[in-house]
Amino acid sequence: MYKIYGDILSGNCYKIRLLMQFIGLGYKWFHVDVLSGETYTEEFKRMNPSAQIPVVDLGNDLYLWESNAILNYFAEGTEFLPRDDHLRAKILQWQFFEQYSHEPYIATARYIHKYLGLPDERKAEYQAKQAGGHKALSVMNEHLDHQKYFVGDSMTIADITLYAYTHVAEEGGFELSAYSNVIRWIKDFESTSGFIKMVMESP
Amino acid sequence: MYKIYGDILSGNCYKIRLLMQFIGLGYKWFHVDVLSGETYTEEFKRMNPSAQIPVVDLGNDLYLWESNAILNYFAEGTEFLPRDDHLRAKILQWQFFEQYSHEPYIATARYIHKYLGLPDERKAEYQAKQAGGHKALSVMNEHLDHQKYFVGDSMTIADITLYAYTHVAEEGGFELSAYSNVIRWIKDFESTSGFIKMVMESP
Repeated sequence: MYKIYGDILSGNCYKIRLLMQFIGLGYKWFHVDVLSGETYTEEFKRMNPSAQIPVVDLGNDLYLWESNAILNYFAEGTEFLPRDDHLRAKILQWQFFEQYSHEPYIATARYIHKYLGLPDERKAEYQAKQAGGHKALSVMNEHLDHQKYFVGDSMTIADITLYAYTHVAEEGGFELSAYSNVIRWIKDFESTSGFIKMVMESP
Repeated sequence: MYKIYGDILSGNCYKIRLLMQFIGLGYKWFHVDVLSGETYTEEFKRMNPSAQIPVVDLGNDLYLWESNAILNYFAEGTEFLPRDDHLRAKILQWQFFEQYSHEPYIATARYIHKYLGLPDERKAEYQAKQAGGHKALSVMNEHLDHQKYFVGDSMTIADITLYAYTHVAEEGGFELSAYSNVIRWIKDFESTSGFIKMVMESP
């Protein structure tokens, strides 16, 4: 069984949990506490020298990191990563868009606000993240005006990639009400069979 | 023939030119001047709503953007993107590492220094980019201590991805002399058959 190292509060880790649930693949979860610096231990950096979560232990001393690379690995052969070359290229395009033009703004603003409590010394950085986050949401909203999902006619790992931090964008100060197509897409995503919430609710 | 829209001074565009040269695929280059805002015209944003270069026109109104997605599309079926699932996952891992942990530091510092002339109002940002850039170079240098290329035993698009901005890192203030494995890898890369320089030299 695959071993996955991550933090349940991280959207990048949530991506992997969502895919595994959708495709019914089992795994064992090992908690890594980012806030207390557990990704910087020598033991962790032996798995991922870049000191980030999530990391998957594929066995034989092979560790795979970068959430979107992990999604591609596990989705191969499933409906979440179609065979067609154009669709695959478009899926990667949206995944790189997420890591370059979306996550650094929306996830970082959320992190500063929700987990660090918006301390004075990071308020300017938090404010500076707002324009980039809204630009990414606008690009998504425009695209979803004529698409039910991001690529092709069904849900793919492009949607999983973008859903992870978009659905909690308001925790980073990004009001979603102006992005009606994004809201519709979030609802569609959450009604998918196998969908699980980011953080398990208490019973 | 493929139409590629880009700026010859951009490392992200250089990646595509390198791959096309290595695999011997022809294309027509259309210059887009980033500094004068040409990616923000309505005409350009119809191709890429994210307003970034490079963009490839694949015909039939299909435009592909994000440099690393474009590399995957064109490298399919060539030696630069092997079939093995583990190798492909590792190639994507290093490509996402480049877009998240390398390019935003090294390319942005270079842009501020080389193209904007390090104006006073961006000096703090330039300085703030240095730690992240050196972290990325350290991760690369450590990895290359026991690898000739980034993934497997031969050059792949992972190397093209990381070479683009690493070889000009000094233009962003990143002294490479401490990274001896990176320097060796750059020399190996530049001795590859088909290699072309980033900017064509005057005759």
